[in-house]
Amino acid sequence: MRDIQFRGVIPPLVTPFAPSGEIDYAAHRFNLQRWNQQGLAGYLVLGSNSEAASLSESEKLTLIEQTAAQAKPDHIILAGTGMDSTVETIRLSNEAARCGAHAALLLTPFYYKDALNEAAQIRHFLEVAEKCRIPVMIYNVPKYTQVNLSNKVIATLSQHPNIIGMKDSSGNIAQLVEFQRVADPSFQILVGTASVWYPALILGVQAGIMALANCAPEVLVRIQELTAAKEMKEAERLYRQWVPVNQAVTATYGVSGLKYACNLRGYQAGTVRSPLQELEEPGRKAIEQMLNERPE
Amino acid sequence: MRDIQFRGVIPPLVTPFAPSGEIDYAAHRFNLQRWNQQGLAGYLVLGSNSEAASLSESEKLTLIEQTAAQAKPDHIILAGTGMDSTVETIRLSNEAARCGAHAALLLTPFYYKDALNEAAQIRHFLEVAEKCRIPVMIYNVPKYTQVNLSNKVIATLSQHPNIIGMKDSSGNIAQLVEFQRVADPSFQILVGTASVWYPALILGVQAGIMALANCAPEVLVRIQELTAAKEMKEAERLYRQWVPVNQAVTATYGVSGLKYACNLRGYQAGTVRSPLQELEEPGRKAIEQMLNERPE
Amino acid sequence: MRDIQFRGVIPPLVTPFAPSGEIDYAAHRFNLQRWNQQGLAGYLVLGSNSEAASLSESEKLTLIEQTAAQAKPDHIILAGTGMDSTVETIRLSNEAARCGAHAALLLTPFYYKDALNEAAQIRHFLEVAEKCRIPVMIYNVPKYTQVNLSNKVIATLSQHPNIIGMKDSSGNIAQLVEFQRVADPSFQILVGTASVWYPALILGVQAGIMALANCAPEVLVRIQELTAAKEMKEAERLYRQWVPVNQAVTATYGVSGLKYACNLRGYQAGTVRSPLQELEEPGRKAIEQMLNERPE
Amino acid sequence: MRDIQFRGVIPPLVTPFAPSGEIDYAAHRFNLQRWNQQGLAGYLVLGSNSEAASLSESEKLTLIEQTAAQAKPDHIILAGTGMDSTVETIRLSNEAARCGAHAALLLTPFYYKDALNEAAQIRHFLEVAEKCRIPVMIYNVPKYTQVNLSNKVIATLSQHPNIIGMKDSSGNIAQLVEFQRVADPSFQILVGTASVWYPALILGVQAGIMALANCAPEVLVRIQELTAAKEMKEAERLYRQWVPVNQAVTATYGVSGLKYACNLRGYQAGTVRSPLQELEEPGRKAIEQMLNERPE
Repeated sequence: MRDIQFRGVIPPLVTPFAPSGEIDYAAHRFNLQRWNQQGLAGYLVLGSNSEAASLSESEKLTLIEQTAAQAKPDHIILAGTGMDSTVETIRLSNEAARCGAHAALLLTPFYYKDALNEAAQIRHFLEVAEKCRIPVMIYNVPKYTQVNLSNKVIATLSQHPNIIGMKDSSGNIAQLVEFQRVADPSFQILVGTASVWYPALILGVQAGIMALANCAPEVLVRIQELTAAKEMKEAERLYRQWVPVNQAVTATYGVSGLKYACNLRGYQAGTVRSPLQELEEPGRKAIEQMLNERPE
Repeated sequence: MRDIQFRGVIPPLVTPFAPSGEIDYAAHRFNLQRWNQQGLAGYLVLGSNSEAASLSESEKLTLIEQTAAQAKPDHIILAGTGMDSTVETIRLSNEAARCGAHAALLLTPFYYKDALNEAAQIRHFLEVAEKCRIPVMIYNVPKYTQVNLSNKVIATLSQHPNIIGMKDSSGNIAQLVEFQRVADPSFQILVGTASVWYPALILGVQAGIMALANCAPEVLVRIQELTAAKEMKEAERLYRQWVPVNQAVTATYGVSGLKYACNLRGYQAGTVRSPLQELEEPGRKAIEQMLNERPE
Repeated sequence: MRDIQFRGVIPPLVTPFAPSGEIDYAAHRFNLQRWNQQGLAGYLVLGSNSEAASLSESEKLTLIEQTAAQAKPDHIILAGTGMDSTVETIRLSNEAARCGAHAALLLTPFYYKDALNEAAQIRHFLEVAEKCRIPVMIYNVPKYTQVNLSNKVIATLSQHPNIIGMKDSSGNIAQLVEFQRVADPSFQILVGTASVWYPALILGVQAGIMALANCAPEVLVRIQELTAAKEMKEAERLYRQWVPVNQAVTATYGVSGLKYACNLRGYQAGTVRSPLQELEEPGRKAIEQMLNERPE
Repeated sequence: MRDIQFRGVIPPLVTPFAPSGEIDYAAHRFNLQRWNQQGLAGYLVLGSNSEAASLSESEKLTLIEQTAAQAKPDHIILAGTGMDSTVETIRLSNEAARCGAHAALLLTPFYYKDALNEAAQIRHFLEVAEKCRIPVMIYNVPKYTQVNLSNKVIATLSQHPNIIGMKDSSGNIAQLVEFQRVADPSFQILVGTASVWYPALILGVQAGIMALANCAPEVLVRIQELTAAKEMKEAERLYRQWVPVNQAVTATYGVSGLKYACNLRGYQAGTVRSPLQELEEPGRKAIEQMLNERPE
């Protein structure tokens, strides 16, 4: 098992669908060729922006395989394999490992959220960590799950040698700072949204898994480089410039908006699968205008 | 395709697990034998209380097959096959039909809830209804999904010949009355919680899919019989007597509480799968005491 | 102190404002003359529909005085005097008593909701009950306060001789039944919304404080009479007919919609005070059409 | 009217109550003497931590007068005068001006939140701004109000010459950055929580109104000085050290916790008024331990 150290930008990959509705694997490989040139740290397959809920298991595994096969050798391959079932999460995570994933990103269970207290959350993650052949990471995304992990849960889980970190998509900076305080020093906390990328870097975060990295990876990489080089003014300027785009391709227009932005910027993101719907005219215009105003 | 008319009580079946974690199919058959004697109208397999999220697809289909095989001939077999993917919902619903389900109960898609406006909801259900070999029903359960369908969506969907009804688990009586008003007269609205069973019957509802029907089916059947016989006082008395039990085995203690109550009342509900946890001592005592106070 | 028994319909009175923004007391007296003919059980002054938040204390007390002076002798005068401060609630309630209120309706404190556990809620209401010269009632309205009282709080408070009942505006029938179960038999539970008026009557509720009673008091009175006379079919028909109007003048269009409906039905409700805004054209049309379709 | 430029730390003052329940004005003056030595930029009277909801209007005005009289000459005196009524807000704001307040901080109206769209919000604030003798600021605190102002509302209001800024207590850094983008350059955005003080300073915020400034003003002042002096490491260290204390005296233990911490640190914050309750033993121990660990 390789030692995994997260430093840099990781896109939660969109899944390109052809007009027929099938996955367009050629488009996926085309995108990977381009993404491979952007200085990224790795890829997340089957994240919230992948429409994983609309993928069959065989499609999921093929996507992992193809991504692992095409990625640059130093890229970390993460797979989003968390489900509401402990045993199914273990099974799919190990399948993902077999297909080339280096670590599994585990969504908090949430369907029975009222019944899952801190003890139940801890047991779930510990059991997966014990039985998973690859390292696991925790994925905290209250926007989708209505579940927000506590300091106590993070403090406990961060002690386990096979739970190497987390993706916190809450966008809550105070919570991020608290997680950093209570977690084991070896535990790697990644931000899950570009909306706080620059402040997170200032606060010692070293990596981010951010939707915007699908369509503007070079911008997010540049912000991190500038911050590392102490060129704070320029880092902040670039960050501020792209926060509204990030808002558009996440909260406002969702995956349909993100794919539209990818297509405008030279990627082949294709269409969405139902129940998601293609972006309508006002959304298309809004995103076009935003991108035209940001030539860099 | 049989004509489906819902009249009566339908339990959303719990799935009995053996201590090993495997489904205890013998226990399931034992339960069905008992449930078959209770005057029920049918069974829902793979509802929210089945821990469907913790079942593999092959387990799901086997449960449908076994339930269909063991049910009384006049029982309606419903299968909970709704997922966040339109195409996967169609596929699983048709698999369920092949295994003996008479109708498919479709959870509202909810993972990308912010992106699913009324138009997207309508398209999803219509597409499934068009391509599903058996009739479909809508499952509105805001407690789990944070999605609550509007009058407009119900009015539209109720016109489709293959969308025969809905299960409304909101417990909101005013909303139920509004759905009855706007829906096509042929559209069958079932309540999804015993907490409003008696008022719903008074308001013309003819069937309910209710967690409590797993452990106290005869009580819910009796309330409906009494109401039909205009013995309102006794119907109301019985309803009031069991509302607190219903609260305990749903909102307060969840599936673990429901299974514990089933076991106390002579069913073999077994254990829960992780991430759910066995009921702890205070919950066990509370449920025991409640059931002891209700000998009938 | 008179013995207060609630039987019937009580409107939470709207406050008529003249175009100048001042309270139009002549219009208020005109309305009271008409309401006095409708077979009501009393009046609530300073409820959520009164725009109490926009009234000065002297306006509040004048409204109580005028309402008490104009009401039929057998009418119960309630005053909404609950505030976030225990001591201010006591003070205003006693002022209201001096101005003619027979009982005080006490909103749950909610500004510091996270800090107010069950013990704090209980202490607040007990202290007001002890020091208030007139009986008090609890006002549970989660829609406005995000606070929903528990069975335990209601069970405890219902034992106090000066806490004579509650208005539950949750619209949650299962909760209503639970409150009836745990409360002292002498505790009077009133519904706070016409959306569940008929089912609440079926379940033994004897009075309601309902926004719709401002503009359609005779309808709500008639539903109760029909229910008492066991003419259930007609009671239910009338109830169903007016649920959509109730929805329009509460959830959909709020106080502005309610006042517009009052004006259409011959009352003088005047305008709203800022920050509320007059109803716009689509809302006006919608309410006009609804009322035209309900000539009775 | 003085030109108001916010640079620094402003505590939203707690109100000291004597055991009798009366305001302890001597304690208030004692506190002001100490706070005057801490390098603060001003004081907010009648903020969320003042228990304003439990103060009579005459108490409110006396507090403003005494604070204005005791404050250092260069201190800005803010008064929290926002209410759910436009006209009452104007009236109280002008009373506050008469008593010495330099600017009025206006809570978003929220009781009728469903009826208050962007247009209604804008009209409310513009009307107050027009009729208020002193400059006004907007107070956005979704935790208490469940209302979160939009970019559009802030963009519009920021253009008005008498709306000089806002206090954003959301703690949402991405939203702060968006408000900075859309607002008029002259509009001053203050943070409303110490949980994001350091990142907010990094992002150009120049002032904060923060509960923690009641009990640890010198810490928050020092963080700003260090940041200004580009001693980022030390600024960040101090910020991280105090985030957990801030969490304790706000989200976890509320005003009771804040007052307890003030008392431990040499201020005279007295007791709370009902419905708030004195901090219980576990909370007292937790805060004592936290403060003992932070000798500086």
